[in-house]
Amino acid sequence: MVHAAELIRRKRDGERLTRDELGELLLAYARGDVPDYQMAAFCMAVYFRGLNGAETFALMDAMIRSGETIELGRALGRKVVDKHSTGGVGDKTSLAVGPIVAACGVPFGKMSGRGLGHTGGTLDKLESIPGFRVELTNAEFLGQVREVGLAIIGQTADLVPADKLLYGLRDVTATVDNVSLIAASIMSKKIAAGADAIVLDVKVGDGAFMKTIEAARELAQMMRELGRHADREVVCVLTDMDQPLGQAVGNALEIRETIATLRGEGPADFTELVLAACAHLLALSDLGIDEPSGRERAAAAIEDGSALDKYEQWITAQGGDAAEQSLPVAPVVRQVVAEGAGFVRAIGAVDVGMTALRLGAGRQTKDQSIDHAVGVRCLRKRGDSVVAGDVLAEVHARTGESADQACAEVLGAYELGADAPSSRPIVLETIA
Amino acid sequence: MVHAAELIRRKRDGERLTRDELGELLLAYARGDVPDYQMAAFCMAVYFRGLNGAETFALMDAMIRSGETIELGRALGRKVVDKHSTGGVGDKTSLAVGPIVAACGVPFGKMSGRGLGHTGGTLDKLESIPGFRVELTNAEFLGQVREVGLAIIGQTADLVPADKLLYGLRDVTATVDNVSLIAASIMSKKIAAGADAIVLDVKVGDGAFMKTIEAARELAQMMRELGRHADREVVCVLTDMDQPLGQAVGNALEIRETIATLRGEGPADFTELVLAACAHLLALSDLGIDEPSGRERAAAAIEDGSALDKYEQWITAQGGDAAEQSLPVAPVVRQVVAEGAGFVRAIGAVDVGMTALRLGAGRQTKDQSIDHAVGVRCLRKRGDSVVAGDVLAEVHARTGESADQACAEVLGAYELGADAPSSRPIVLETIA
Repeated sequence: MVHAAELIRRKRDGERLTRDELGELLLAYARGDVPDYQMAAFCMAVYFRGLNGAETFALMDAMIRSGETIELGRALGRKVVDKHSTGGVGDKTSLAVGPIVAACGVPFGKMSGRGLGHTGGTLDKLESIPGFRVELTNAEFLGQVREVGLAIIGQTADLVPADKLLYGLRDVTATVDNVSLIAASIMSKKIAAGADAIVLDVKVGDGAFMKTIEAARELAQMMRELGRHADREVVCVLTDMDQPLGQAVGNALEIRETIATLRGEGPADFTELVLAACAHLLALSDLGIDEPSGRERAAAAIEDGSALDKYEQWITAQGGDAAEQSLPVAPVVRQVVAEGAGFVRAIGAVDVGMTALRLGAGRQTKDQSIDHAVGVRCLRKRGDSVVAGDVLAEVHARTGESADQACAEVLGAYELGADAPSSRPIVLETIA
Repeated sequence: MVHAAELIRRKRDGERLTRDELGELLLAYARGDVPDYQMAAFCMAVYFRGLNGAETFALMDAMIRSGETIELGRALGRKVVDKHSTGGVGDKTSLAVGPIVAACGVPFGKMSGRGLGHTGGTLDKLESIPGFRVELTNAEFLGQVREVGLAIIGQTADLVPADKLLYGLRDVTATVDNVSLIAASIMSKKIAAGADAIVLDVKVGDGAFMKTIEAARELAQMMRELGRHADREVVCVLTDMDQPLGQAVGNALEIRETIATLRGEGPADFTELVLAACAHLLALSDLGIDEPSGRERAAAAIEDGSALDKYEQWITAQGGDAAEQSLPVAPVVRQVVAEGAGFVRAIGAVDVGMTALRLGAGRQTKDQSIDHAVGVRCLRKRGDSVVAGDVLAEVHARTGESADQACAEVLGAYELGADAPSSRPIVLETIA
């Protein structure tokens, strides 16, 4: 029997708990033998006292053991690579990375999530595509990764159920922002889903969960440590989320931008991040190549059209209509025009994300439905110089009224100034 | 609607909450609108961040408003005084204080609790008395205080229900030991039960919740501040709980010691504490006398037999048999004998309390039944000199086996030494 109150007290008092103690606590919670109120008090004690690497690993390991795991590597006879992003505004990276990596001959089978608040979710974006099925059986998922080399689906309920429970509890008890709890949540899902090597895109800045490079670094280091404990290779890229990623924010708009990027016509910052992520994934794969070669192959897959072909194959395999013209279109498109001249010094990522959400692109509570057509396109990005009358952005809306409101908000999200801002690369730091 | 998660987050981040915010949170919790898990996380945040005086008052005030209050003073047309002890080993103070104060013409109507763990409860002690009823209706309670001047009963369910809920939650989430939560819990009950002035006996030492004088002082000061906010007079006495109070530990044994004390034949430390508490209570009452006069009157009530008369009147009024010989007697009585000579330097209060509990005098879980006859009598106390063969203590047990075990434990609880310990008064400090 787990003495939950005693474990809470010991963590409250700053003591270290053993692997068995943490494992039993978490699994008893998952079984319903430890009630929510004890787990909530425990999480708050962890918020104040922290968990070290070994404790965090124990928690993650128990989360994995709380449910099924997918033996993707064994099923394919291959080393399996995966990527994860901590979430941002306009983050469609996986949608472009998947086809490129698969076109290079590396299987990519990924489970993704939905959006909440100002950040979007990969599944929501994919559901802009008419007919696309995000729910496959395990057998369908494995079969598609084997045949097409690529599948992206929703997380099955049987995978890390303890994480789902715990996340729901943390969300309503102000215990989300703890580096160990975040790291264990992310890594448990990746490992349970079968990843042998993982590229973690840790977003940093205004539009990200991690507001500072120091916080992002701490999370990256904890996830790398978890990977080491679990014999998984982990590469973390810390990337800029002070402005939206690429131009498009909103589901179908982001699918269009993904297609453009696979055609070699994507925004510079987004293309750069996609190539960097692919380079790391290919270097971690069983191709036996290094990162610069990985980058070359990824660029070549865009250049020779094989990445776009793979995209179409994938979408079709999952029941979707891969043609760009079949994506939904918003009835009202308005331009956001600069009122003066200057350099774009900043674009508030949260502001743009919230505007897209209010247009209908996202959800504020878990049960809201989504308008896949609407969103924002930030045509001018940080560092661009503009004159009065230049188009800064486009708003894609369902109604004129919501478009007007959104235009005012997007204009407010743009900060113009006389001086050019210091340049800031999309990949701020790599922790390997 | 209360945004509980937001209030938890703000407290977690060290912010102050307003009176309305804390009141709404607590009352929503009492109504079941805020779940246990949010309150547990909140209590843990309070454990780490604390509550200031105003916040603690807001919490206490809401706890009072969560249920009924008893207008004892209005019903009697008198100023009502009450006392409370934070709990210790051998603490039968209220049982002697009540009859003395009532004999001096000051009404004393008190709600008490049961024991848990190594500390005893006043109600359990009273239930040693054949026929004694601890449950009276509010009308019976008021009537008895009016006619006899004295009643001690169990807390009614309608009084501060939020405290009951919250205490149960804190008990299993390692959030009991926070000065604000303890102070609000104690003071809410006293005020809801109708006290205008309160003497608080804060126990300090090995056998008490507060292990150090500093911790006891902090609690005393917080309770005094709460009293001030609520326009109640509060006097705190910080008293020694490094050794058991008096000699008797165990229910019927403590009733016998109470009777002896009312007869003027009680142990010195216990008699001193009783007189000090009575002096403060009488000085706080509407008699219009000062503390030295209060002490004189209390001593006189023992001397002239009026306190003992009042005890018998009270017990009879509550259905009990006041005769000492009707109290239950343990079948096995063993002596604990000193193995060498020296001074008694210490008697572990927790050790003796736990021995009494294992003999059957207490309960480890809320549902256990109690053996009222058993317990320990510590005949020699700190500072006494003994020679080998002297009787240190008596064990009153149900079986020979449990008596043997208890004797060994009690002997272990006595620390003898060549030098006399420094003297330590029973009342360590008074905070008025």
